[in-house]
Amino acid sequence: MSKPPQPPGPSAPPAADAPHGARRVGIIGAGQLARMMLGPAIELGLTAPVLATSREESAAAVAGQVHLGRHDDEQAVRTLAGEVDVLTFDHEHVPAAILEPIGAESLAAVRPGPAALAHAQDKLVMRERLTALGHPCPRWWRVGSRADLAEALERTGGRLVVKTPRGGYDAHGVRVLDAADQADDWLSEHGQLLAEELVPFTRELSAQVARRPGGEAVAYPVVQSLQKDGVCYEVVAPAPGLDESAQQRIQALALAIAEDLEVVGMLAVELFETADGEVSVNELAMRPHNTGHWSMDGAVTGQFEQHLRAVADLPLGATTPRGPVAVMVNLLGGAAEDLAPGAHAALAADPELKVHLYGKSVRPGRKIGHVTLVGEDAGDLLARAHRAERLIVDGPATAAPADGTTKETR
Amino acid sequence: MSKPPQPPGPSAPPAADAPHGARRVGIIGAGQLARMMLGPAIELGLTAPVLATSREESAAAVAGQVHLGRHDDEQAVRTLAGEVDVLTFDHEHVPAAILEPIGAESLAAVRPGPAALAHAQDKLVMRERLTALGHPCPRWWRVGSRADLAEALERTGGRLVVKTPRGGYDAHGVRVLDAADQADDWLSEHGQLLAEELVPFTRELSAQVARRPGGEAVAYPVVQSLQKDGVCYEVVAPAPGLDESAQQRIQALALAIAEDLEVVGMLAVELFETADGEVSVNELAMRPHNTGHWSMDGAVTGQFEQHLRAVADLPLGATTPRGPVAVMVNLLGGAAEDLAPGAHAALAADPELKVHLYGKSVRPGRKIGHVTLVGEDAGDLLARAHRAERLIVDGPATAAPADGTTKETR
Repeated sequence: MSKPPQPPGPSAPPAADAPHGARRVGIIGAGQLARMMLGPAIELGLTAPVLATSREESAAAVAGQVHLGRHDDEQAVRTLAGEVDVLTFDHEHVPAAILEPIGAESLAAVRPGPAALAHAQDKLVMRERLTALGHPCPRWWRVGSRADLAEALERTGGRLVVKTPRGGYDAHGVRVLDAADQADDWLSEHGQLLAEELVPFTRELSAQVARRPGGEAVAYPVVQSLQKDGVCYEVVAPAPGLDESAQQRIQALALAIAEDLEVVGMLAVELFETADGEVSVNELAMRPHNTGHWSMDGAVTGQFEQHLRAVADLPLGATTPRGPVAVMVNLLGGAAEDLAPGAHAALAADPELKVHLYGKSVRPGRKIGHVTLVGEDAGDLLARAHRAERLIVDGPATAAPADGTTKETR
Repeated sequence: MSKPPQPPGPSAPPAADAPHGARRVGIIGAGQLARMMLGPAIELGLTAPVLATSREESAAAVAGQVHLGRHDDEQAVRTLAGEVDVLTFDHEHVPAAILEPIGAESLAAVRPGPAALAHAQDKLVMRERLTALGHPCPRWWRVGSRADLAEALERTGGRLVVKTPRGGYDAHGVRVLDAADQADDWLSEHGQLLAEELVPFTRELSAQVARRPGGEAVAYPVVQSLQKDGVCYEVVAPAPGLDESAQQRIQALALAIAEDLEVVGMLAVELFETADGEVSVNELAMRPHNTGHWSMDGAVTGQFEQHLRAVADLPLGATTPRGPVAVMVNLLGGAAEDLAPGAHAALAADPELKVHLYGKSVRPGRKIGHVTLVGEDAGDLLARAHRAERLIVDGPATAAPADGTTKETR
């Protein structure tokens, strides 16, 4: 007996109505964060043109599609928006005045949207909102004059940190003061500044989450980050010694911030941890973040793939680590102008090492790449990652051997 | 006391003399294998232009640099060679007559070189060489006439397989015969054919190795592969039930073939395993291979990164698996012309799933992507991978639910 003909299911939607997410994601900015989205975009089958200021920029040098223009040039941003389903970002500096009409006119979805981005663009806006929401922050003051600063200094025992509300990154736009006249230049330039107590933190943590437009969100393991001259330098995932309940509490905080601010994409919440185990929010970043580079090799879904999935409204991927511990060490420009000989030596010394180079010219302290390792023991992994770092940034001829013996020449 | 000036170490080489490997790797051909090299090339900081016949080809659609031209157009290949340090391949079909002068004139290093490639280009050359070297092969005959075929058929009990020496891939160029007149067309086209006994294999295995110009080589875990209509369909890594001594013996065989043939890059040795546990060589491929796609997500160093490291003469990476078992299932063109809705449904159903799409138009049976999973249990992983495969190639509206219950609509 042959199978009877099947009536078309009245409730079965045609395939064309099935959700499929965005197919074209335009990336504004062409630094290393845009660059590291390109590989995952290829594998996901997403088109990912970048808006770059020159063809030599990190992502522009390797992208399949490059638009030339500045992130604050309205026409350049709109032209890219017109060719994609979604706009996302290598950095948070695109003015809301450019982004708002793009979303309002449905020229492209803007993810994260300008209302969310405001909290990563303006540190005063961020502090006001987080405080209103009851999320833990250092004590802070909006200061508009020397008198304001003097008052804040009095409350903080004579030392505090001031930050420009906008335009800062890494160590830029951050200054520690012990006198009220030490920020005159910034006061005249910015009008208002953010002053904060110096938090006596024992270490810095970072909590990353990803959130889709509909609210689906996932959290990565909370990591420990170490800064060097205000620049992210070393990350251990998960944060050593952080117990499960503390981790869950911090993940819940980051998920709540993503929900409260309606972030779409990756959100990094940088935190201070104090001796009592409490945390307070230092900074927010609404994009893949340096403290999440470990996940490229150390998690089932790396942060660059995850960011694309979130902004394209694709289902989010597992954040499960691929091993007990992952470490990341940044390559910050040093003596070697050519990174290839050191990378060669580092790969030869450690077959498990993953080297990521950004294709940027070397300047002292500039982020030019990073290395990762996944394994069992954080101390061992860090020693190996730093050996690789020295070989690459100093060059193999000058890097001291890790074991202290005389360097063999060859 | 200041540090005394250091004399320049007479034996310390300047950094410029340190080895650094190639920086520019040109890829001939722009199929999915070239495409999947692009992400790793970005991370390694390698420039990787592709030679494509159109801008719509799988790799050309996403590559940063595209040269247009055919792989058998000498001028097109030479133009690409002139702009890179190394030429490598998406496929093995570039004529030796084009490649030999490129190497001889040092226009670019050709890796793998034409002398090695000959064994992947011509199955008669491969059989003769492997037999001379004493590596295990099925019984085989060079046949140039019906009479030759009749004689071979007599020795194999009336059935055998014939293969065109050149130009075959997947199921193309392979035919099973039971009469001597069934290959007249191929005899007149090719002159000589390869005839082989039909091996009563219990399963197919694949052994992949990578080899650098100087001879450094590494072996991946031996995997089990399942074909469907002559096309690779499903891979389990490592091969279930293969004991350690058998694995080592097979890895040693693949390493010996790579050494004997002076292969540079990835080499895949496809094998028949028979009931007695013996293996014989079926095919060789000198490039990343479908049976190695699992390693993109399932090994510390994926085969595409490894191939680039080998041909660029960079130190090879660890082949260590990232978990106890990895599986790969190919996406072969089916009912769905648009893969995005099914990919969306598959990602939603399985957060650990990795989907790789090749950006190719859908035709029945065509390789259009693959999925991988890493975990503990091969049966579970395969069930999940095949559920994803059905969703993507059939489309979410028509794919039967994996658990047999009525499909929920939404």
